[in-house]
Amino acid sequence: MCFPIQCARAWSSLWLLFTFATIFPAGGNAQATSSLSLMPQPASISDQAGQMPLDANFRITTGHFSDDRLEHAIDRALQRLSDRTGYILLRAKASDAPPHGELWLDVAAAGMPVQGTQEDESYTLDVGPQRAVLHAATVVGALRGLETFLQLLDADGKGFYFHTARINDHPRFVWRGLLLDVSRHWQPVANIKRLLDTMAVVKLNVFHWHLSDYQGFRIESRQFPRLHELGSDGLYYTQAEVRDIVAYARERGIRVVPEFDMPSHAHSWLIGYPELASLPGPFTFTHQFGIDSVNLDPTQESTYRFLDTFLGEMTSLFPDRYWHIGGDEVEGSSWDKSPRVQAFMKQNGMKDNGALQAYFNQRLVELLEKHGRRMVGWDEIVRPDLRRDVLVQSWLGPQSLATAAKLGFDSVLSGPYYLDKMERISKQYLADPVPDETHLTAAEAAHILGGEVCVWTELVAQENLDTRVWPASAAIAERFWSPREVRDSDDMYRRLPAISLALEEAGSQHHTAMDAMLRRTGRGEISPEVRQFFGLIEPLRLGAREEARQASQLTPLVAPGDIAIPDPPAARNFSRQIHEFLADPGHAAHRDELTAELRSWQKLGPAIHSLAQRAPLFQDGEETAASLSALGKTGEEAMAWISRAATPPPEWSRQQAALLAHAQIPQGLLRIAVLDAIQELVKAANGGNP
Amino acid sequence: MCFPIQCARAWSSLWLLFTFATIFPAGGNAQATSSLSLMPQPASISDQAGQMPLDANFRITTGHFSDDRLEHAIDRALQRLSDRTGYILLRAKASDAPPHGELWLDVAAAGMPVQGTQEDESYTLDVGPQRAVLHAATVVGALRGLETFLQLLDADGKGFYFHTARINDHPRFVWRGLLLDVSRHWQPVANIKRLLDTMAVVKLNVFHWHLSDYQGFRIESRQFPRLHELGSDGLYYTQAEVRDIVAYARERGIRVVPEFDMPSHAHSWLIGYPELASLPGPFTFTHQFGIDSVNLDPTQESTYRFLDTFLGEMTSLFPDRYWHIGGDEVEGSSWDKSPRVQAFMKQNGMKDNGALQAYFNQRLVELLEKHGRRMVGWDEIVRPDLRRDVLVQSWLGPQSLATAAKLGFDSVLSGPYYLDKMERISKQYLADPVPDETHLTAAEAAHILGGEVCVWTELVAQENLDTRVWPASAAIAERFWSPREVRDSDDMYRRLPAISLALEEAGSQHHTAMDAMLRRTGRGEISPEVRQFFGLIEPLRLGAREEARQASQLTPLVAPGDIAIPDPPAARNFSRQIHEFLADPGHAAHRDELTAELRSWQKLGPAIHSLAQRAPLFQDGEETAASLSALGKTGEEAMAWISRAATPPPEWSRQQAALLAHAQIPQGLLRIAVLDAIQELVKAANGGNP
Repeated sequence: MCFPIQCARAWSSLWLLFTFATIFPAGGNAQATSSLSLMPQPASISDQAGQMPLDANFRITTGHFSDDRLEHAIDRALQRLSDRTGYILLRAKASDAPPHGELWLDVAAAGMPVQGTQEDESYTLDVGPQRAVLHAATVVGALRGLETFLQLLDADGKGFYFHTARINDHPRFVWRGLLLDVSRHWQPVANIKRLLDTMAVVKLNVFHWHLSDYQGFRIESRQFPRLHELGSDGLYYTQAEVRDIVAYARERGIRVVPEFDMPSHAHSWLIGYPELASLPGPFTFTHQFGIDSVNLDPTQESTYRFLDTFLGEMTSLFPDRYWHIGGDEVEGSSWDKSPRVQAFMKQNGMKDNGALQAYFNQRLVELLEKHGRRMVGWDEIVRPDLRRDVLVQSWLGPQSLATAAKLGFDSVLSGPYYLDKMERISKQYLADPVPDETHLTAAEAAHILGGEVCVWTELVAQENLDTRVWPASAAIAERFWSPREVRDSDDMYRRLPAISLALEEAGSQHHTAMDAMLRRTGRGEISPEVRQFFGLIEPLRLGAREEARQASQLTPLVAPGDIAIPDPPAARNFSRQIHEFLADPGHAAHRDELTAELRSWQKLGPAIHSLAQRAPLFQDGEETAASLSALGKTGEEAMAWISRAATPPPEWSRQQAALLAHAQIPQGLLRIAVLDAIQELVKAANGGNP
Repeated sequence: MCFPIQCARAWSSLWLLFTFATIFPAGGNAQATSSLSLMPQPASISDQAGQMPLDANFRITTGHFSDDRLEHAIDRALQRLSDRTGYILLRAKASDAPPHGELWLDVAAAGMPVQGTQEDESYTLDVGPQRAVLHAATVVGALRGLETFLQLLDADGKGFYFHTARINDHPRFVWRGLLLDVSRHWQPVANIKRLLDTMAVVKLNVFHWHLSDYQGFRIESRQFPRLHELGSDGLYYTQAEVRDIVAYARERGIRVVPEFDMPSHAHSWLIGYPELASLPGPFTFTHQFGIDSVNLDPTQESTYRFLDTFLGEMTSLFPDRYWHIGGDEVEGSSWDKSPRVQAFMKQNGMKDNGALQAYFNQRLVELLEKHGRRMVGWDEIVRPDLRRDVLVQSWLGPQSLATAAKLGFDSVLSGPYYLDKMERISKQYLADPVPDETHLTAAEAAHILGGEVCVWTELVAQENLDTRVWPASAAIAERFWSPREVRDSDDMYRRLPAISLALEEAGSQHHTAMDAMLRRTGRGEISPEVRQFFGLIEPLRLGAREEARQASQLTPLVAPGDIAIPDPPAARNFSRQIHEFLADPGHAAHRDELTAELRSWQKLGPAIHSLAQRAPLFQDGEETAASLSALGKTGEEAMAWISRAATPPPEWSRQQAALLAHAQIPQGLLRIAVLDAIQELVKAANGGNP
């Protein structure tokens, strides 16, 4: 799904449906939470009190079964342990295993030749003081268990050790995906591999590869070479690269589901093959965002012959059983304007464009069946007469998802997991794929196979991909894997730094790329003020950003709004400080800490202004920094009223209300992440009145 | 050249010959230095007062000549400017050039089909207030000028601009290389490309690829597949990758000179082809460092037939006119022990192993000539009877270099530019390829074609490659490019942050990789104390490190000694503070600044100790941190004596001398980078007595 301005408003109202998630009570649930920092939390865990030391004698051994995939995974795990500990850790056969410090992998079989939704990903992991045993029915289960095992590594003054534990684990959902849109911004193979490496760390198992859209057709077609030659700006994946990526994903227990969006979002096809269009061309490559107004023509047999040949070629590259045809946002005006289409619809008794799309989808289902694939499409494809073996991916929200489930369609939820909405992580974390308010029966709910994080890339380039994906997606991955009852946001935030570190170890550049961008933008070292500033601000969500400043594929995504991350830890920490202060305004240490923080904000306006004099891209941050300085003063004054238990004069309250209202207006593509907390403080000073 | 323990001592005395470099007067030279931050400094520059603004209308245009290589370079330059400024900057034809904010590339021709030492790399760059013109005889000259142009970008409160300038530039030396040893630690293709990208930023023009050594044969041979199959641990470059890298280098105006070291450093050849050895095998792959004791057998015609075929295959991959055969450190005992070799030597009247190696080299010269290549070898190949078209690369020092030059050999200097010596950058910067004390005539000096930075990789893995290479190599690159008179270390250090930023922009990970390593080693965020600690310490040089703790190829290079960088900026800054204080002990601000710094050290011991309790790899830093804390106290006390102009009691002086002596002993693979400065302070307190 794109997120252009024209659908931002429709979106806003749809989004309201999701806000229930934020009022779920956090913390204190039935799940016996662990003091460890595992993410995703396993289905069950016990016996965490002991230690299994790790030293140079540590070994990983396999039982009667092993294969290349398992061996490679063991090598990678040992490499990561070596890099953490400094020990040379080598493979060893079971026969020469040392008496302690061993992980034994007892794996029954390879698993499915082509990984599918039936793959058994469960495992048990029993870490005792001398030996750990991982049992899994498949290599994929062993991969999941290995990641958990790596998360058990800890250390103290005596050295490294694994926490002992008895873990019995399996995923709540079989479909735990991440969609990457490579049409709006292409990503090099190295970035895709890095993404797969990090997805594996948090047990995501579907890489949904959005390969074509209005703004680019990103895969080599030998049958129809003008697709990639004219439908891209030279940025596409060769078939060899695709095979390499699919194999790379399989090594990590990740399926690759390709998406070729049609009949809308298909402008890039038409540049080389205008005969597929429902209105005459010519069509040209564009770097602009938006939705195409000319759709594929579903009325011509030649369209289906084309797609048949195309699918024949492409299915040889993507072995997965599922095939995503998009099907979203069919605007339809090109069908309305086409005499040929209109004649066809009349002749076949089709009352509306929905009926025509249904006909198109029916033809696609048959074509896909011929090529051994099950169709996946977005909400809009759902019709009572659509075959029930089609999988529905929902971006429109829980009601739409519920409709599909009640009709008996398998489905996966994506709406709440759009990263371009720049939400608080806790909000996306708490959004459940089986929303309570939809009141599904158990049988209906069983149709919900999972969810997908969506990385739409209008504002995601090569450089800031990782800062957009991690660590938020780790929390969402836990939503997809762990029991429903695991929903303590505070505990999720407690565990987030550890998984963030594991993600960096696996190659993620979410820390380093941000730093490199800050250095380039600031034209030198990152000052403490810049570091602090970026802890207090957030980027605009896609729609608001596009309203504030138009961008295209060509726009360098190098502004502060492209560097800032949503839900920065420092802002969360500030919220905590506010709550501590409000809970006990007399606590001197808390008060002093908060005062010092608020005072330091008052230097940010001048600091960012001064920086902008030699680093013009920071001009974007000047107004926001000035607002933060003003809010620091507001906060200090509010604290004074609260501490004195005095009522501020109405004039003060009016002034602060105006200032808060002004601070609410985004400036320079930035929002103030700490605004809610300051508002809370002012409200408390006002005796609880906003 | 390796740098094993056994040759460390010989090395130390040779190195003394170079220390002259440090006593050269810095600053105040004939060169009219620029206030800009160009590196390398151009041969001449004037008219720097004005500005040419850059905005979205800025264009790069070409004159009558262009080619793919130039177009690609322009695209890369525009991309870098876009990323710095946020403007969409596109190619445009000269005809639609805007009235100002333009760079016009007036290039006469492509340059040599295979870049050689005769390539014309000169250019003139005239940046006026409205238009810049770059004239170059070749595309390579244009590449050099483009890098200079990018370094002229600056900004103020009004926006971005280029400094105006008239630059007339050409390299002092035609051979400006960087040797990368991929035998001791292999580097993936992505890292090699990153290295080439960054080399181009500082106008280095030779990538010397040390492809085989004792510890690994790193290139695919189809003629002799057991070379890479048995001579490596699976880590080697395919021929397709080699062709890709050679083409990638040419795009950036960089030659690729391969080195296949022989007849010593050739153990990895013998594993698959023991018949080449002068003593019977079998030979096995080893991860241990050191020099092989069995050399190739120069007495067998089969050896030359093998090399003939091998060169025939390899020269098709490497078009460069030069071919490096190594030739260093022939220990010779395997020749002494071989009856076959001894018989041959007797029969041919060879008095010593030197004569045999000379015979071998003579045969190699002839083979290389047959394949259209000129031989390059290390110092040891020099003999009065060796053909003068052989190029000598000197690692043994200036006297050896002078000997070669006096005999009429072209040569390049490497000895002072070994990065594994972990020197101060200024020391390597000031070491001139034409050393004064060798008293060469102009004609002899003309034989010195340049120099090479050497990256031997016993202690350089994939992760810390960039922190070992940059930014030190940028200063050395200036030594190779800029006029001899450019030798103001302070000004080099002033310009270093700007080039460091440009290197990061071009892909170098010298900042980010260090941070990622610190996070993993510290098992979390980098604390201010850890950051400070790493500003005050340095890694051990290779020899001392190996004496302190043996490593092999398998050793994870993740200890603080692998993360710390030589010559950290904070330590230089501390030296400056000391000098300021000593120059005027009454200056309150300087005194307070220095006192605060010394006091903050006193927290480092406890902080690193505490960190080591949960991050065991930091145990390596505990003793050094404790020493720093003690030195902080020493420094404060010394300041007090100096401020009071009082003489400390002998007991105090004795105690400090003992403490300083203790601090001199490396602990945990670390040295204290600020030790000299503290010693200076104590000496001053002692009234100038050490």
